[in-house]
Amino acid sequence: MSDRPYPTSQAEAEQFDAADPIAHARSRFDLPEGSVYLVGHSLGPPPRTALRQLQQTAGQDWAMGLVGSWNRADWINFPARLGAKLARLIGVDASDVTVCDSVSVNLFKLVGALIQDSPQTRTVLVESGEFPTDQYILERLAEMTGAKFLRSDPGQSTDHLGTGVILVRSLVDYRTGAIAPVAKLESQARQVGAEIVWDLSHATGVLDLTLSDWGVRYAVGCTYKYLNGGPGAPAFLYVASDHIDTLQTPIAGWLGHARPFAFDPHYDPAAGVQRFVAGTPPILSLASLSGALDAFEGLDLADVQNKAQTLGDMCLNAFARLDLSSVSPPVGQARGGHVSFDHPDGYAISRALAETGCQTDFRTPFTVRFGLSPLFLRYQDVWH
Amino acid sequence: MSDRPYPTSQAEAEQFDAADPIAHARSRFDLPEGSVYLVGHSLGPPPRTALRQLQQTAGQDWAMGLVGSWNRADWINFPARLGAKLARLIGVDASDVTVCDSVSVNLFKLVGALIQDSPQTRTVLVESGEFPTDQYILERLAEMTGAKFLRSDPGQSTDHLGTGVILVRSLVDYRTGAIAPVAKLESQARQVGAEIVWDLSHATGVLDLTLSDWGVRYAVGCTYKYLNGGPGAPAFLYVASDHIDTLQTPIAGWLGHARPFAFDPHYDPAAGVQRFVAGTPPILSLASLSGALDAFEGLDLADVQNKAQTLGDMCLNAFARLDLSSVSPPVGQARGGHVSFDHPDGYAISRALAETGCQTDFRTPFTVRFGLSPLFLRYQDVWH
Repeated sequence: MSDRPYPTSQAEAEQFDAADPIAHARSRFDLPEGSVYLVGHSLGPPPRTALRQLQQTAGQDWAMGLVGSWNRADWINFPARLGAKLARLIGVDASDVTVCDSVSVNLFKLVGALIQDSPQTRTVLVESGEFPTDQYILERLAEMTGAKFLRSDPGQSTDHLGTGVILVRSLVDYRTGAIAPVAKLESQARQVGAEIVWDLSHATGVLDLTLSDWGVRYAVGCTYKYLNGGPGAPAFLYVASDHIDTLQTPIAGWLGHARPFAFDPHYDPAAGVQRFVAGTPPILSLASLSGALDAFEGLDLADVQNKAQTLGDMCLNAFARLDLSSVSPPVGQARGGHVSFDHPDGYAISRALAETGCQTDFRTPFTVRFGLSPLFLRYQDVWH
Repeated sequence: MSDRPYPTSQAEAEQFDAADPIAHARSRFDLPEGSVYLVGHSLGPPPRTALRQLQQTAGQDWAMGLVGSWNRADWINFPARLGAKLARLIGVDASDVTVCDSVSVNLFKLVGALIQDSPQTRTVLVESGEFPTDQYILERLAEMTGAKFLRSDPGQSTDHLGTGVILVRSLVDYRTGAIAPVAKLESQARQVGAEIVWDLSHATGVLDLTLSDWGVRYAVGCTYKYLNGGPGAPAFLYVASDHIDTLQTPIAGWLGHARPFAFDPHYDPAAGVQRFVAGTPPILSLASLSGALDAFEGLDLADVQNKAQTLGDMCLNAFARLDLSSVSPPVGQARGGHVSFDHPDGYAISRALAETGCQTDFRTPFTVRFGLSPLFLRYQDVWH
């Protein structure tokens, strides 16, 4: 267990709520009554500002402004504007992030760009416990380009770091919630001439990420989990500015062109990370995400992370009392926003919990996950 | 000029409206007052059902149903359900279409799948007047896979059709509105062992497309023009069912997997065209599109096409009276839903028209386009 204090009674949970520096963020959501939603790590609920921005974009900018909104509502720069908004949440420069496509497509583009100069000298490395879509994308991309593909055992990828290796790694493990030692791995990669592309899907919006300080050069991530952007909200892609110039996206769509409206028959990549935008992005889904990011305004990510990890400690303590074997790291600082246990009847347990008003999720074959979204959950909700 | 009758006076325009079999479709839209919107070929306005479905999906399914809506609102099958809805509008089997990603990404996936078995024996062919993003995507894809890339002069691609060639061609030219001779080109392709991938972006929702009858095997297309799906609404991808089994998408995302929730580390493509879905699609944008497609309910596409082409005849007649040189085919049957003229002051003309309440668009360097969306435009609007 962690050595940080956590509530061990209803009364203590209420005290923690009273002292919670981000308690006011809950009022930014309209949550359905009567249930405790512990699935924010899979699909976050809508902040009011998300629904409001969606309404503005659909009912006004589209319905009234029509095609003119590409300029008047600045839809054309939506990927860059959202990237700038999101940059604070991952600790990088505002101009180094873009928002478009899905995590799968962004991973394809980014790793594709990294291997393309010399696919024959590149090895794409991923662990077998990694989120499946990342494994599929990478194996197929390697096959297509002639790069070598290596799938290591869980936790063993560092043994294979070497010159020309591109490791794709989740910052937070989707099953256990374990946080990877980012700065240490980046420094190891530097020493041997490898690169790491981070998948931040289960980390963004719940951890106090400082990617630049940690030496991270490349990352992708999802926006519909702790960022509450909406179902299937477009993903982000980050490249540190001193590594962007040599990268060419494999999917050379017109909105990644330096001058999309020149209708030049030849492709000329946009400056910076915006070259990774491919086709026309889904504006309504971007609008919802834009409003959702406003729900983070004024919140200190250190407080967000601390609350998530403390809520996790409470859950792990409860699991221990119930003799449930957790697969999550016992120390809060080593975890993201969710905690899990494995049980042969995991699916039935998750269903039974739902009937008591506590929504969790289940990942085959045995894992029940509790997602502890700090913006809208109270300590007393989770205690209950 | 066409030999079909078209209105040549305000009174005749009103008579055409009175006899128009799809006149009632206009009431499915709430259009801003006081302007004639001739840019439906770029961004269609929202049908009421689009805004309503968006509201349902965001305000109910997401806000109330939360993560459970992946099953309860059947989000998981949204790409297939939308594909089935759209299939009638392009004249193919309901199970052969999917909706996801952008046109650029779908073109990349589809042509990537076609060349991958033997890139060295494949030539990717495109005309230099083709929509630029298609050219960018294909040139880059060829470079990445080692396929040969050939850019022909406008109208000359047929000279290069041969064994192993994959021609990408717009069914309706984005500048002139000219319709390609689909069935004839497909038959030529068959004779020499070539394949054609059609870009239906400027054709779908305005022409009476019968792809299966014409022998079309592969197509992609846009849904935010005449289909009115919303800004950046996801694109579609079609593969005739007897050609799907050997195709493997280059972007092997989890929602194209046969069993996405098995979390299998190995990729196993879904049956049929659904294997081309990559990552999690933007549900809110799909919802809007789903509602927008309802605006086509009960409309005969032959009536839609006939009205668009008649409106085009009216415009071309007006251009001729004003001594404007049109670049569009004079015969209605040879045209899609837009007509254009070239003028050295095209941009200024388009701006001046806007000030009179008539919105058109401009494509560099000289082209002014009039988009004639038959669902919401009246003959008297265009006459005016």
